Amino acid sequence: MHAVLSPQELALTALGATLLAEILTQDDTEIERYSRDGTGDHYARPLAVVRPRSVEEVSLLMRCCHEHRIHVVPQGGLTGLVGAAVPSFPGGEVVVSLERMNTVRSVNPIDFTMVVEAGCILEEAKRAAEELDCLLPITFGAQGSCRLGGNVATNAGGFNVLRYGMTRDLVLGLEVVLADGRVWNGLRTLRKDNRGYDLKQLFIGSEGTLGIVTAVALKLFPRPTQVETALVGLASVEDAMALYARARRECSDLLSAFELLLRGCIEIAIDAQVGLEDPLSQPYPVYVLLETAAGGRVDLRALVEDFLGHTDGLVLDGVIASNRAQAARLWRLREVMVETQGRGGRYLRTDVSVPISSIASFVAQSLAALAQAHPEARVVTYGHVGDGNIHMNVVPPLGMPPETMDDLFHAAEDIIFDVIDRHGGSISAEHGIGRVKQKAYLKRADALTLELASRIKDAFDPRHLLSEGRILPLRDV
Amino acid sequence: MHAVLSPQELALTALGATLLAEILTQDDTEIERYSRDGTGDHYARPLAVVRPRSVEEVSLLMRCCHEHRIHVVPQGGLTGLVGAAVPSFPGGEVVVSLERMNTVRSVNPIDFTMVVEAGCILEEAKRAAEELDCLLPITFGAQGSCRLGGNVATNAGGFNVLRYGMTRDLVLGLEVVLADGRVWNGLRTLRKDNRGYDLKQLFIGSEGTLGIVTAVALKLFPRPTQVETALVGLASVEDAMALYARARRECSDLLSAFELLLRGCIEIAIDAQVGLEDPLSQPYPVYVLLETAAGGRVDLRALVEDFLGHTDGLVLDGVIASNRAQAARLWRLREVMVETQGRGGRYLRTDVSVPISSIASFVAQSLAALAQAHPEARVVTYGHVGDGNIHMNVVPPLGMPPETMDDLFHAAEDIIFDVIDRHGGSISAEHGIGRVKQKAYLKRADALTLELASRIKDAFDPRHLLSEGRILPLRDV
Repeated sequence: MHAVLSPQELALTALGATLLAEILTQDDTEIERYSRDGTGDHYARPLAVVRPRSVEEVSLLMRCCHEHRIHVVPQGGLTGLVGAAVPSFPGGEVVVSLERMNTVRSVNPIDFTMVVEAGCILEEAKRAAEELDCLLPITFGAQGSCRLGGNVATNAGGFNVLRYGMTRDLVLGLEVVLADGRVWNGLRTLRKDNRGYDLKQLFIGSEGTLGIVTAVALKLFPRPTQVETALVGLASVEDAMALYARARRECSDLLSAFELLLRGCIEIAIDAQVGLEDPLSQPYPVYVLLETAAGGRVDLRALVEDFLGHTDGLVLDGVIASNRAQAARLWRLREVMVETQGRGGRYLRTDVSVPISSIASFVAQSLAALAQAHPEARVVTYGHVGDGNIHMNVVPPLGMPPETMDDLFHAAEDIIFDVIDRHGGSISAEHGIGRVKQKAYLKRADALTLELASRIKDAFDPRHLLSEGRILPLRDV
Repeated sequence: MHAVLSPQELALTALGATLLAEILTQDDTEIERYSRDGTGDHYARPLAVVRPRSVEEVSLLMRCCHEHRIHVVPQGGLTGLVGAAVPSFPGGEVVVSLERMNTVRSVNPIDFTMVVEAGCILEEAKRAAEELDCLLPITFGAQGSCRLGGNVATNAGGFNVLRYGMTRDLVLGLEVVLADGRVWNGLRTLRKDNRGYDLKQLFIGSEGTLGIVTAVALKLFPRPTQVETALVGLASVEDAMALYARARRECSDLLSAFELLLRGCIEIAIDAQVGLEDPLSQPYPVYVLLETAAGGRVDLRALVEDFLGHTDGLVLDGVIASNRAQAARLWRLREVMVETQGRGGRYLRTDVSVPISSIASFVAQSLAALAQAHPEARVVTYGHVGDGNIHMNVVPPLGMPPETMDDLFHAAEDIIFDVIDRHGGSISAEHGIGRVKQKAYLKRADALTLELASRIKDAFDPRHLLSEGRILPLRDV
């Protein structure tokens, strides 16, 4: 007599019969590192981890999963912030890590394009582009560990969006394995192609729910030969936004980053005691880290000096980095602040956007509401304000018990999102929805949007096997 | 006894009972101008023409059409080149002209955004942006009569794509009436918004087959305060593309147009006898019309002079316009060539793209093949080569009988598309598929792409009432 096998055991038997042993693992120690993402907030063990080395192996895997109705979640660098890539389906999920598909297939400096596999680490792709004097402009803190498939799946943003756009704007083509294992080949490097529906757009930003991206063709730019980085102190967020309006007009589309930091951010970086000093001669309420970049025949230094020298009093003080090391130190202030803002513990991250003209009003109203309701919390405010994008994070006081902390996070998020709603903003500017923002998303999305999204999910993944329960709720069965 | 009504008569009765008389017309004279598009190649009378004044009226119309299964085709400025907007469904189609919904709702020079109704003429939207010192960068020949809903539906390209992207890259939000009359409200002006699937992407470039765009939110740029226009003569397409590679690197992302014209194009413009003279002191095989644009603090004139003065012999001769009138005259060469290339008769238009590095090879191979097979035809070659986009048009000899002409067009198109296939290119870079390119598209598209596209069509327009038979074939019933 045979023992009755659970669905999980049946799934593992099917996978074991289909896949080569070297790409399938259930080893407890090994699968541990696929069980938790970079936030540390989400943990669940996968049924198994599959690490395919080719699109054919991903296809084989998905054919098997489709036949046996096995749930799958694709994983890149596990740097996402909304809990989408860690297993969560109640019956268990198989993790497909793309990490072994990490080749830069080609870089073409005439076409300004590159083709990379989904598991390629962003920084390595950037370096490969640089070697041929090209720029892959996706730039953000996690670039040393995030992978391009994940950047595509989340439509990653970052520092340079105001000049070069989101990841969506840089994707020329995709290769995708569908839920039933068929391979959709849209891996083209054409800059203009109006042949029928642009299917690749659906996969970009869909957080792994519609297909598994296995390779990406990207648009590149000339690698700037000059970069000028400056940090300036201002009296208010209003003044920072007035400076932004001038910068857009006077820096001739050469502005590549415009990062707002409130004074508290600078203090966090200094307090981290990693050798960073107050960057200007005295404290200012608001700082902007701005960068311009250009190719050959522009005197960028003169342009930036001229611009910052004629701001009609908006800029109270400032420093323009005189070399790359100084520029790196200015950026380091921001990095250290991001890394240490949570004092090593949990904190509430938000990632909201409003129309650019509403930034100052949004910041003022939400800081006032938070200060009134939760004077005990530390609020850290910064963001890519040239895109209308603010990260307003809430750090609990030291020693707060976990339950109180959860209450604080919920209450603070409600306060921030209420202000966002009043400004016609978005509760997720660049991080996505995943599971962390799902409740807030579903509460605000209109019924027609959700219906159309569900129809697309049904059209692409009729058995709901891919990243089920992210963005859209788990399907009732 | 009542006469039995035809489906067409029933449709008209239902529309008459639903819609106000002032927006519905069946008047023979009036509907004539909705029966033919700008190419003159397509003609069919609509069942009726509806000219709604609001999204509510579009919604009411579509509810009625959905209930009574009436086929509908949305129309903008009728400037499309692939026969998508003229009635074509065998049982007859109702035209929905958006021309009365032509308001510029708002322009925001801080956010660099504008909101316009779908029937707004592109040039009027551009002018409204300019009044607030902003630039709406969509630019092409038909801008004086095309309408923004059509630009979105076709993902329009044009001269400035290499710097500012296609229409898709400029759309921040849409309002769309679905096939069943429900209104999808995605009319946002946020620059970053990663909340779930980006549904608006589906409507962009879908040629009216998935919904009727009624309003658009667009991304603007600072209006350039300096523009430099130059026309240069070169020895070959290879040299033109080498110049492009340098221009991208040395003009610091300030290059806004790079138009290739073979010598024949210049001759067409001169022969048109509208007062245009040979622009350089002697003829050259190849010309490039290039434009750079910048805001405040760049000496653009010096940059362009410096760039064109150091091309290591690539540029054989050239002129930089010294004022706006001179610049307009240089552009006029191109416009007149486009307008008069067909000698007032029919000609074959193509709109193909290849990777930028393949432009020279594509042009050489297709011109050689055409010259060998059809020495009687005149081939006109020009294009937005900075995007890899070439228009290679075939003009029949004077007096060729219509049947021979059709044969020539088919044969010439096959020759050009064969070379495109060998270069991994696209048979439609910016014009779309519509009906004109449908056969060539369906022949080349893989089965999975067509299946996914059909699933999307079914999800958004289950009764197949909207622009049926464009892009995808008519559904078997």
